[in-house]
Amino acid sequence: MKIIRPTLVVNKSVALKNIEKMAKKAAEYNLRFRPHFKTHQSLKIGEWFRPFDVEAITVSSVQMAEYFAGGGWNDITVAFPLNILEIDNINRLASGIKLGLLVENTEAATYLAKNVLFPVDVWIKIDTGNYRTGIDPHDELLLEEVIKQVNAGKNLTFKGFLTHAGQTYSADSTGEIFNRHFDALLKLQSLKKKYINQFPKIEISIGDTPAASICTTFTDVDEIRPGNFVFYDLMQQNLGVCRFEDIAVRMVCPVVAKHRLRNEVVIHGGAVHFSKDSVTNVDGKAMFGRIIITKNGKKQMLDPMNYLAKLSQEHGIIKVAQNQFDNFDVGDLVEIIPVHSCLTANLMGHYYTTDGELIEMMPGF
Amino acid sequence: MKIIRPTLVVNKSVALKNIEKMAKKAAEYNLRFRPHFKTHQSLKIGEWFRPFDVEAITVSSVQMAEYFAGGGWNDITVAFPLNILEIDNINRLASGIKLGLLVENTEAATYLAKNVLFPVDVWIKIDTGNYRTGIDPHDELLLEEVIKQVNAGKNLTFKGFLTHAGQTYSADSTGEIFNRHFDALLKLQSLKKKYINQFPKIEISIGDTPAASICTTFTDVDEIRPGNFVFYDLMQQNLGVCRFEDIAVRMVCPVVAKHRLRNEVVIHGGAVHFSKDSVTNVDGKAMFGRIIITKNGKKQMLDPMNYLAKLSQEHGIIKVAQNQFDNFDVGDLVEIIPVHSCLTANLMGHYYTTDGELIEMMPGF
Repeated sequence: MKIIRPTLVVNKSVALKNIEKMAKKAAEYNLRFRPHFKTHQSLKIGEWFRPFDVEAITVSSVQMAEYFAGGGWNDITVAFPLNILEIDNINRLASGIKLGLLVENTEAATYLAKNVLFPVDVWIKIDTGNYRTGIDPHDELLLEEVIKQVNAGKNLTFKGFLTHAGQTYSADSTGEIFNRHFDALLKLQSLKKKYINQFPKIEISIGDTPAASICTTFTDVDEIRPGNFVFYDLMQQNLGVCRFEDIAVRMVCPVVAKHRLRNEVVIHGGAVHFSKDSVTNVDGKAMFGRIIITKNGKKQMLDPMNYLAKLSQEHGIIKVAQNQFDNFDVGDLVEIIPVHSCLTANLMGHYYTTDGELIEMMPGF
Repeated sequence: MKIIRPTLVVNKSVALKNIEKMAKKAAEYNLRFRPHFKTHQSLKIGEWFRPFDVEAITVSSVQMAEYFAGGGWNDITVAFPLNILEIDNINRLASGIKLGLLVENTEAATYLAKNVLFPVDVWIKIDTGNYRTGIDPHDELLLEEVIKQVNAGKNLTFKGFLTHAGQTYSADSTGEIFNRHFDALLKLQSLKKKYINQFPKIEISIGDTPAASICTTFTDVDEIRPGNFVFYDLMQQNLGVCRFEDIAVRMVCPVVAKHRLRNEVVIHGGAVHFSKDSVTNVDGKAMFGRIIITKNGKKQMLDPMNYLAKLSQEHGIIKVAQNQFDNFDVGDLVEIIPVHSCLTANLMGHYYTTDGELIEMMPGF
C-alpha cells in the first residue's frame, strides 16, 4: 500500500500483545475482562479479542452498542449515564442481547424501571473522585433511593457499583495512580460490604486503563473495563503507564513544507486527523505528537525537541531541532505517535494495518 | 424529526442570508467570490451557493476537491500546500476541471512543473503574518526561484499571490482585525506591483472570514475565499465578526445527569461531537459552547455564566448558574452554539436542517 495522505496505521501484533497481557492479568486476578471498545470502534479489531476468551464488552453509547450487537457481540454494557430519550433503541437492544446500563440519578432509574420491556442489568455509577458523573459514595440517601427504584423495576437486575476512576489520567506520577486507584477501590469496597447481604451477587466494576495496566490491588473487584490499552498512546506513555513500544498506532503524514528560519516542518495532518488533545512537552509547551523518521531505511524516534507543536484544521507544524532539519524533505512521510488514540481513531474513521489491510470502523453519527 | 442523540442542526435561512451577504459584498468590491467549502464539506450545502452565482470554490485537500468535482464543481482551488505524493490524483482532477494549486517552496514547484500532465493554475502562497505556511514576502530570492519554476512548467499558469491571514483569528479587537488585514494587504499589493509588468494578469487572493466579514478595504484584491461565514460560530462572535443571530448551527444534546452541589449538568455531547476548540469565557475559563434552553415553549440563550465547560470523549459538562439549575431536567434537549463550526461539522459527518432534512457530508478519510 502506498500512503499519500494522512493515514492511521495500526500494528496488529503490538495490539494483540496488549490484549493478551491485559487478558492474562484479568485472569490472574480473577476479574471478568470486559474491554471498552470505544477506543477502536471496529468490528474487525473486536475480533482480535476473541482468541483471548473475551465475550463481554463495554461501549460508550447506545449507538455503539447497536453497531457491536450487529457484529455478534451479545453481552454489552453501555458505560454512559442512561439517556432516557433512547428508550426505544434500548428496548430493541435488550430484546436481543444481554444489555448492561448505568444509572446515576432517580429520574433515569424511575423512567427505566417503568419503560424497559426486556430484562437488563443495571449498574449504579459511583463517582470515586473524577467529578464527572456518578453518585457520591457518601450520598447514602440518594443511593438508597436509586437502588429502590432499580429494585422495583420488574425487568431490572441491580448488578452492582461501577466507576470510571478517570482521575488517574491527571496523576503526576505512577505512585499517584496507585494512590487514586486505591482510594477509589476503598469507596467501592465499603459500598459492596454495605449491600452484600441485601444483594449477595453484587459486583464491582472499574474501568481506567492506567490502573488496569499498572496497579496490582483488585480486592473485591469483579470486572475491569479498560479500553485505551489496546493501542495506548502518548498520553499513557507520558503517565508512565506504557512504554513507547507498547503503542500500537501511528499517524503517517506527508511533509508539504519546511521553514528553516523557524525550524518548522509542515505536514498534512491537522485537527481533523489528530484531535486537539495534547500533553505537556519537556519545554512546557503543548505537544500533539512525537516524531519518527526513516533514515537510511531505518526508523528512528526523534527526541522530544522534535515534536508536533501546532494543529489547525488540515495543517500540522512540527518543531524540529536544528540538527534534524535536513532529515526532513518535502514529499517524505513521517510517523507520528498520537496523544490520544481514541480521539484520533474516531476522527480518522478507518485504519490500515502495517500489512496494508483496511480496517473499517463504526460509521459516523 | 425526534432528536434523541447529539445532533448537528443547521438553520438554512440563516446560512442563506450569510451567503447572500458575502456574495453581495464581493460583488460590491468587484471581487471573485470563491468560498471555502471545508467548513460545510457538503454537496447539498454547496448547492445553496449556486443561486448567488458562485461557480468557483476553495477546498482544503485534494480529497475534498475530488468530492466536490464529483458533485459538478469544475473550478476548484486546493488551498493547501501541494502534497507531491498526490500527483496521480492531481492529474486525474486536472484532466477534468479547472484546478488551482498552491506552492510555497522550490521542491514542490519543480516537481509539479515536471510531473503535471494537464493545465493547472498555480498560486504562490504568501505568509503575511500567520507564520504557518507560505513564503515570506521579503524573501525575494525564494520568490524569484519559485516563480521561475512555475513559469518553466509547460502546463502551469502562474496565477498570482494567495494568503490566508489567519492572524486575524487571534486579534483581541475588531480594530486589530482591520490592522492585520491592512498589513497583509500591503504586503500583497507590493508584490503585485512588483510583478505586474512581467505577469499582467497577476491576481491577489485572500481568505479569512474575519477580514472578509468586517473589513472594507480590498484595493488590488481579485478574489476572496472565506469559508466559516456560512455558519459562523462562537469563535467569530467572540471576535466581534458576527452576531449571535448570524450563527447558523447548533448542537442539540440530551441532558443525562445533574449535579447540584457542583452546579453541573451533564449532556451526551463530548469531544467526538464538538472538537476541543475553546474560547475564553468571561470568567477566564475555557468555554466550549453557549447554552440555549427551551422554557415555556420559548427558546432562551442563557448568559455566559451557563456554559459548556468540559468535554471528554462522549460527555459534556455544562456549568450552570444557581438560578438556572432547575431549568434543566434529565431527558431535556439543550441547544449549544459550538465554538468552531468547521471542526464540529467535520466530526458530526452530517446535519439536519431545522426542517428535519438530512444533509450528508463528504465521507471520512
